[in-house]
Amino acid sequence: MRRTLAFDADDTLWHNEGHYADTQEAFRALLRPFHDDAWIDARLHDTEMRNLQHYGYGIKGFTLSMIETALELTEDRLDGAGIRRVVELGKAMLDLPVEPLPGVAEVLRELTGTFELMVITKGDLFDQEAKLVKSGLGSHFSKIEIVSEKDQATYAAILERHGIPTASFTMVGNSVKSDILPVLALGARAVHIPYHLTWAHEVVASPVESPFPVLESIRELPALLATW
Amino acid sequence: MRRTLAFDADDTLWHNEGHYADTQEAFRALLRPFHDDAWIDARLHDTEMRNLQHYGYGIKGFTLSMIETALELTEDRLDGAGIRRVVELGKAMLDLPVEPLPGVAEVLRELTGTFELMVITKGDLFDQEAKLVKSGLGSHFSKIEIVSEKDQATYAAILERHGIPTASFTMVGNSVKSDILPVLALGARAVHIPYHLTWAHEVVASPVESPFPVLESIRELPALLATW
Repeated sequence: MRRTLAFDADDTLWHNEGHYADTQEAFRALLRPFHDDAWIDARLHDTEMRNLQHYGYGIKGFTLSMIETALELTEDRLDGAGIRRVVELGKAMLDLPVEPLPGVAEVLRELTGTFELMVITKGDLFDQEAKLVKSGLGSHFSKIEIVSEKDQATYAAILERHGIPTASFTMVGNSVKSDILPVLALGARAVHIPYHLTWAHEVVASPVESPFPVLESIRELPALLATW
Repeated sequence: MRRTLAFDADDTLWHNEGHYADTQEAFRALLRPFHDDAWIDARLHDTEMRNLQHYGYGIKGFTLSMIETALELTEDRLDGAGIRRVVELGKAMLDLPVEPLPGVAEVLRELTGTFELMVITKGDLFDQEAKLVKSGLGSHFSKIEIVSEKDQATYAAILERHGIPTASFTMVGNSVKSDILPVLALGARAVHIPYHLTWAHEVVASPVESPFPVLESIRELPALLATW
């Protein structure tokens, strides 16, 4: 039985959260004449959470949430040039190159003979497809699933759709909430490779002793898999 | 061999383009103090086309294009309340109920025993999933494909992924460019059901004599399929 190894994309295959952090710093700078940083961050986070039901995940929704927050925090006094700056911050994020994390390309090349490789990523369809192309990693994967939410039902549907037995499936990702817990709940395996930044929305309390493997880098993955 | 019948979604299963037209009228009203309608429409269309490579299709990208156009057309003079109004126009579109076109629910019920029913739609993943749920039609379809572009390569990949022979596949949709021509080019069948509005980006010159069936309403589909 061929085993399937599925990878999360953002912050597992390539850098992502850092781009949000950089953009948010530019956004703070724009609003610093009006408010202090902590208040700006808190209001932006609230707007994002409130808008998740309208916009889902991704840069376009984030840009619209920045615009809404900027208007709210300035009582509509931010001028046209300021709004234009926010639109441009969003577009600049979309135009960034996609840099694979260290070791990713080598490890994918090494594993491709032994495993069926797959991507399961949450977010905006158009953005994620563009990132796969820009990363140069797309050809390693025989299956790509871009989904709007990563919960147990999503994983169950993906496994069923592709006829993948639970016992042969392993998920690798940086988010305990999205990549690990729902996969373990299904009875499949998961490997956690933390990224140095985690979006507040994805943070869950860590168990004291981890019931799943936690790696420092994707470079440790082949050795781990060889022991299974 | 079970035949697969795939439907486009926007303006084939439910009203869509009318919502864009209504929103664009509200957008014109906002900018009428600055410019005439034809110029506003032309600038918005240009912005949308220029932004397609950044944003892809969908309401969030359309909202960002409206904001950019509004700033451009007012030389950044549109005030915060005006920008807020544009953001709200976009959100209102996302919140609209999804109304199936006349006959759609009955015809899907009628065909579901004979055909494998599928949706192949272009656009924003999050929006399209939400619309399928809100339409109440989701349960008729055994396969749902939300894609970022509908060209011949996309259709070929979908058929291969699902193991659907070209000869058993029929696509039904309102866009000659996206639903009909690329499917015919593959050697599969396609049925055109025009909608009374077509987005300028989707308009192609119509052949004098149509080489594919054109129906007035989805209600005529079962009779057509029965003759094949």
